[in-house]
Amino acid sequence: MTRESTETLAPMANAIRALAMDAVQAANSGHPGMPMGMADVATVLWTKFLKHDPSAPKWSDRDRFVLSAGHGSMLIYALLHLTGYEAPTMDNIRNFRQLTSPCAGHPENFLLEGVECTTGPLGQGVAMAVGMAMAERHLNAQFGDELVDHKTWVVAGDGCLMEGLNHEAIGLAGTLKLGRLNVLWDDNKITIDGDTSLSTTEDILGRYTASGWHVTSCDGHDFADIERALAEADADPRPSLVACHTVIGKGAPNKQGGHNVHGSPLGADEIAAAREYLGWTAAPFEIPADILANWRAAGASGKSVREAWEARAAGNAKAAELARRMSGELPADTGYDAYVQSLIANPPKVATRKSSEMALEALTAKVPEMVGGSADLTGSNNTKTKSTAPFTPDSYDGRYVYYGIREFGMAAAMNGMALHGGVIPYGGTFLMFSDYCRNAVRMSALQHQRVVYVFTHDSIGLGEDGPTHQPVEHVMSLRMIPNLLVFRPADAIETAEAWALALANKDRPSVLALTRQNLPPVRFDAEMKSAKGAYRLVSAEAARKVVLLATGSEVALAMDVAAALEAKGIGADVVSVPCWELFEEQHADYRADLLPADTLKVSIEAGVTLGWQKYVGDGLTIGIDTFGASAPAEVLFEHFGLTTDKIVPQILSRIS
Amino acid sequence: MTRESTETLAPMANAIRALAMDAVQAANSGHPGMPMGMADVATVLWTKFLKHDPSAPKWSDRDRFVLSAGHGSMLIYALLHLTGYEAPTMDNIRNFRQLTSPCAGHPENFLLEGVECTTGPLGQGVAMAVGMAMAERHLNAQFGDELVDHKTWVVAGDGCLMEGLNHEAIGLAGTLKLGRLNVLWDDNKITIDGDTSLSTTEDILGRYTASGWHVTSCDGHDFADIERALAEADADPRPSLVACHTVIGKGAPNKQGGHNVHGSPLGADEIAAAREYLGWTAAPFEIPADILANWRAAGASGKSVREAWEARAAGNAKAAELARRMSGELPADTGYDAYVQSLIANPPKVATRKSSEMALEALTAKVPEMVGGSADLTGSNNTKTKSTAPFTPDSYDGRYVYYGIREFGMAAAMNGMALHGGVIPYGGTFLMFSDYCRNAVRMSALQHQRVVYVFTHDSIGLGEDGPTHQPVEHVMSLRMIPNLLVFRPADAIETAEAWALALANKDRPSVLALTRQNLPPVRFDAEMKSAKGAYRLVSAEAARKVVLLATGSEVALAMDVAAALEAKGIGADVVSVPCWELFEEQHADYRADLLPADTLKVSIEAGVTLGWQKYVGDGLTIGIDTFGASAPAEVLFEHFGLTTDKIVPQILSRIS
Repeated sequence: MTRESTETLAPMANAIRALAMDAVQAANSGHPGMPMGMADVATVLWTKFLKHDPSAPKWSDRDRFVLSAGHGSMLIYALLHLTGYEAPTMDNIRNFRQLTSPCAGHPENFLLEGVECTTGPLGQGVAMAVGMAMAERHLNAQFGDELVDHKTWVVAGDGCLMEGLNHEAIGLAGTLKLGRLNVLWDDNKITIDGDTSLSTTEDILGRYTASGWHVTSCDGHDFADIERALAEADADPRPSLVACHTVIGKGAPNKQGGHNVHGSPLGADEIAAAREYLGWTAAPFEIPADILANWRAAGASGKSVREAWEARAAGNAKAAELARRMSGELPADTGYDAYVQSLIANPPKVATRKSSEMALEALTAKVPEMVGGSADLTGSNNTKTKSTAPFTPDSYDGRYVYYGIREFGMAAAMNGMALHGGVIPYGGTFLMFSDYCRNAVRMSALQHQRVVYVFTHDSIGLGEDGPTHQPVEHVMSLRMIPNLLVFRPADAIETAEAWALALANKDRPSVLALTRQNLPPVRFDAEMKSAKGAYRLVSAEAARKVVLLATGSEVALAMDVAAALEAKGIGADVVSVPCWELFEEQHADYRADLLPADTLKVSIEAGVTLGWQKYVGDGLTIGIDTFGASAPAEVLFEHFGLTTDKIVPQILSRIS
Repeated sequence: MTRESTETLAPMANAIRALAMDAVQAANSGHPGMPMGMADVATVLWTKFLKHDPSAPKWSDRDRFVLSAGHGSMLIYALLHLTGYEAPTMDNIRNFRQLTSPCAGHPENFLLEGVECTTGPLGQGVAMAVGMAMAERHLNAQFGDELVDHKTWVVAGDGCLMEGLNHEAIGLAGTLKLGRLNVLWDDNKITIDGDTSLSTTEDILGRYTASGWHVTSCDGHDFADIERALAEADADPRPSLVACHTVIGKGAPNKQGGHNVHGSPLGADEIAAAREYLGWTAAPFEIPADILANWRAAGASGKSVREAWEARAAGNAKAAELARRMSGELPADTGYDAYVQSLIANPPKVATRKSSEMALEALTAKVPEMVGGSADLTGSNNTKTKSTAPFTPDSYDGRYVYYGIREFGMAAAMNGMALHGGVIPYGGTFLMFSDYCRNAVRMSALQHQRVVYVFTHDSIGLGEDGPTHQPVEHVMSLRMIPNLLVFRPADAIETAEAWALALANKDRPSVLALTRQNLPPVRFDAEMKSAKGAYRLVSAEAARKVVLLATGSEVALAMDVAAALEAKGIGADVVSVPCWELFEEQHADYRADLLPADTLKVSIEAGVTLGWQKYVGDGLTIGIDTFGASAPAEVLFEHFGLTTDKIVPQILSRIS
């Protein structure tokens, strides 16, 4: 691209400003400050650097653009419209923040192509971009420069940099030397509460330098200086932070530079003043033809680049495999069937974290797009397999990430990897520390991404580490996140099933809650029973009076309880419930058959009982509604009443 | 204190090592690496710098010592025992990690005096220490050097520094210039997965410098060098990081320096080798008399310092007020009664976030120990009052903290402030971002601390910001955390009651889930009804067939539904349920009276329905089990079926 003059670029940037202020005004809600402040920077990026083709938004070798400061959503809606994406239309923009428009308050990846990820929860855009840059380098290492050779560009605000997550994300990026990641920081010295100096005195460039980043600055309203800084960032082999010195709300003559322009409409008077200040005479939601033509030309310039890529791909033997991985389709043989047969031949008595490792050994050998890792608990989460060599700056083809003690950074990076496509990320930590990354788990679900969370040490069964490490409320509270599959498997076969289902569900994330302690096998058949979420594991022999529902480590306990009841002539089913969400999706008849009305239903799970009333009604809920304690696991199960001796009398008192 | 020779200190440090390795071995579980590695540093700190009196562990002007790397719990158990605290006894240490011992796997503030906070969840110890240092400066500004003049010392590991939370904590400490905070970093180059270089290449000292900290380093096994570094940290007016270069597991000749010594018993052979290497001939759990005498002398030296303080306090007019605040007792008049009367006189139609601000205006005027703040959402959370001037480096007597965009850092700092005592911290963010600080909320509850979380924008009622900002699962999932009061008040009076109850509950934290949107008043009386957690707000006029249970913004909706039912001759109670946890604590008769068996029970809450089955049984649960959407609030309530027109037919179909 040639260097255009300020005379060309300035009106193009003003088109962004006009759309932002008019859309926010029409909605009477939204954030004009950031789009107006970053309009100049975005114009340079989208006309001179960003590799994309609006006519093929899913082209795999496009650059990824992440608007980490998602509240400034009008910036990306304007850019997509102006450069010629099919959506959003001007009507969509006119209906910004209304139920009928894909131009939601914050950008949503599932509403618009070109929105690479959903942003708004601060810090996560940058952290997802780290994952995208990791996926790019990984696929580049596996498929070569001819097929995979793109960059990741981020626009971030002060909030994204102040969040703790930023430390994790940039530490990971610096360590992994992700030089194709460039973060454009909207350095406007303003947060919602006022000047940034109210709450921070940090030398941000110093911090990024300490994390192994290249840093530079520019005047965010000087097109030539912006171009100089972006070129520098582009060229440097380290990840880059560009501090763009901007005026928030630039163009609103009376309000710019103040925190009141951040998150409220400018108002009719100020918009009129801004039109005059900017020399913008077009009516709201109208873009003068010459300005639009310049934008469309910039957008169209990517087409030939994409076509050249397609020509290269047509002659590249690896292109089909890349396409398969990018499509999200699994290989025909995932290794699952043979592995389950091996379990049936030799049912192991192991912890489900170990079962998970065994399943992963089989699956990672056959599913090359699986990329694992752990937040510094590799040996405890059992996430590393022989097929997954370390992913390092010297070997991006590796499939195992040492994420460090960065749970939130790991989860957000995995979202970015999944959003990029071509990889299926999984990563481990203790279930307790799902708290540290909980919003990223939610963002996996909201964004419909196949990310697999390996959360081990899932109850008091972890023993001596005590209540800070013993999840009590976690399994149930994860079940409350929409569109998330939460598996708590009971043995090696259920764990294998959970893994198979997690991989098969292309459009949603899964959690595997796994034990530290060994569990006996309870399943000896290959029928994929976990697919129904719950199933009858043991049928009553005597006349059925009791149905025991249990998950994970408590399934074997439920079987003992059932046997004790049967010994007294009381018939008891045992229903294993590895996944509530899948059970909810079954036909009502199936659910009713498992939970017959004329029985005492009893739930047994080593966690909070709140929630189980959904299935047991006014039956019994056996669980733990307090914090745990520090002691060996068997002592704790006794202490908290999770033993056959403690449970059977409670059931007898209810059915006598 | 005079400078002792290495000959005296080395055996004292080895006493720590011996207790650590023997206790872990006896428990067959635990972490010997850190206590052995940091034994020399801890010995210098506890003999030459730490101001404390083992005979008066709650003396308010003691230095606070925080073992942020809580897995190394044997370090503090050894130190407390050796310096002469009443507990732990040697028997307690011998029973390390057993149910009967206060020497839990991780240190718990509620099990041992001298354990200033519960640690284990990485990063939180440092962040709580920031809060302790804030409380110290605040009380110093209010009560003077004579009464409040102490320091906060932290031992932290690589994990505590790598967690994102660390960025938030040190940014806050640097901005607030908390010079009395000193962090001793166990710089041993090892994490669980292996060398730190596996996952980080950060220049940690550079990062701390960029955050406004003083940094220095020392040889963590050279007593003179340790003393030099700690003295430097002590003297510098900035918060200090001391990088203590240590060998993990120092003293175990074959295992030291490797990651295998981190979290497993050394084994009998290595312990024998360590005894020889250290020249430690005493039997397990025996400390030679001369070494113990040196430790006890170091501990006893604090007594005269404490007595001198008591003498000063006896003559200080402010001492009684400080004692009251440190005791946690509220002033006789909190301003609550008069404020509620003013509401009855003029019932306002405002958002509950506004009601909260009004309550805070009244309460903060009368309760000087309340210290508020927000994670950069002051104007949205409505947390600032006229009585609370900013807390800044120039005015530590201020009572309002601009926490910045640091939700987790804020929550952890509030825990530290509450643990320090003398202040009642409250702080705001959007309810969505309770996800970002969830584990700190849990830690408030586990540690029995009175911290008040002001979580506004509590449902789709926030409107256009869309699903990234609309809590759906959050209220219910917070209810699952043990020992946490979750209030969702319906109007100004219930909000006032929630505040009064949050303050009155000295030993547990509270969450206030508050609306963005205006709500009509539903209460016009001063009886403290929220204290029972749920109460009958409207009694059926026609024969009662329906009981509607609702919280917060849906209480007024439930009243509309009830009126519509009554118009059809169907009697309906409305039960407001502002706090589930308090309702659970009521007598069974009270609960049964509110939820009579012969009625259709219907819950209405703009969040997930899972959980409500506990109260409605097989009745109706009206709520939102998917993510939200971006649109004006009233459009969303209609879209998600939370209107009288949508709810009444569902009820009719169930009772016809």
